[in-house]
Amino acid sequence: MEIFQKKLNLRARSRGFHLISDEVISAIPEINHLKMGICQVFIQHTSASLTINENADPTVRDDFEMFFNKVAKENDTAYTHDYEGPDDMPAHLKAAILGSSVSIPIANGKLALGTWQGIYLCEHRNHGGSRSVVISAWGV
Amino acid sequence: MEIFQKKLNLRARSRGFHLISDEVISAIPEINHLKMGICQVFIQHTSASLTINENADPTVRDDFEMFFNKVAKENDTAYTHDYEGPDDMPAHLKAAILGSSVSIPIANGKLALGTWQGIYLCEHRNHGGSRSVVISAWGV
Amino acid sequence: MEIFQKKLNLRARSRGFHLISDEVISAIPEINHLKMGICQVFIQHTSASLTINENADPTVRDDFEMFFNKVAKENDTAYTHDYEGPDDMPAHLKAAILGSSVSIPIANGKLALGTWQGIYLCEHRNHGGSRSVVISAWGV
Repeated sequence: MEIFQKKLNLRARSRGFHLISDEVISAIPEINHLKMGICQVFIQHTSASLTINENADPTVRDDFEMFFNKVAKENDTAYTHDYEGPDDMPAHLKAAILGSSVSIPIANGKLALGTWQGIYLCEHRNHGGSRSVVISAWGV
Repeated sequence: MEIFQKKLNLRARSRGFHLISDEVISAIPEINHLKMGICQVFIQHTSASLTINENADPTVRDDFEMFFNKVAKENDTAYTHDYEGPDDMPAHLKAAILGSSVSIPIANGKLALGTWQGIYLCEHRNHGGSRSVVISAWGV
Repeated sequence: MEIFQKKLNLRARSRGFHLISDEVISAIPEINHLKMGICQVFIQHTSASLTINENADPTVRDDFEMFFNKVAKENDTAYTHDYEGPDDMPAHLKAAILGSSVSIPIANGKLALGTWQGIYLCEHRNHGGSRSVVISAWGV
């Protein structure tokens, strides 16, 4: 078995949900060498997250932003961690719900995603800036 | 280290939460060869998901269905992605909250699940049909 | 590639969110041997969970407890699984939302966590007792 690892700096995105599958794949061409394995993508932040969902219709990603804003509301007076702005504590909560990594099988040199699956960068801050992810791929 | 990978087509299930631990284990008997490792199960869909939870009392799984229907409601007029039916957008949201994969340690040739842990297939569509999962196991 | 695996028994904690990064790292010093790899931490319970979030300000962890208590309420009359106490079914739901494992890249002999990332034990029961986690690390 072999393992490869790359660090990828994603450019700053607006608050919301963004497809990054192509950027991830381009960053680690060694996936092509693996007949079977796993690719893990890990985000090194606590107010942005990663998930896998529908890759075709952008309205799905808009509805994600609408929905998670209702789940983790801004300006809840019950928050005690509020000095980094109203979008900060909800960002931490959304990141925990969605998760800091995704793991995808590799089969025949490609990510074995379903037809409609894409990797989302979930940017939960208003001005999150650039985000760094570590991509690891292992297998044979 | 070695790695094994299998594709498993799960038969269509009703909307709700279903235990699939035994099917997963049967599909990849090579786990028995591994003294220590990891087994990952990945679902290739965006409106069904996988999680690990209580394997004994079926009322837990009924309460999961009740609860997630309240979290991600059907017919929210704020949804813009609505043309695949009222169960579609909530299915995407539930899938993101619960996740598209589970990873379980392997110890002494078996999944090192806790006594009360089982693998759930979470079917979020009314008529989701057959679901495909990719099972990967690696270790020594 | 090599793989290491350890079982760690975490002492009983109060209901809430607790930083356990240092305990995890101490339990598996073999991480130091790995130039690149992955460390997975898996909790063998269905009413406690693991996540990664902000490691600096304890008020974030207080707000997590407040928030998840609102998401998965106690004493919802719709629960049918209620004979293990009012904190039991919400604990299962929180565990499913947050997840039973975290996976973190290893780079140059250390966990490649972001500056503000820590590993949380999420104790969802009032008296959960000691919790066991399995830590696996693999790489080169």
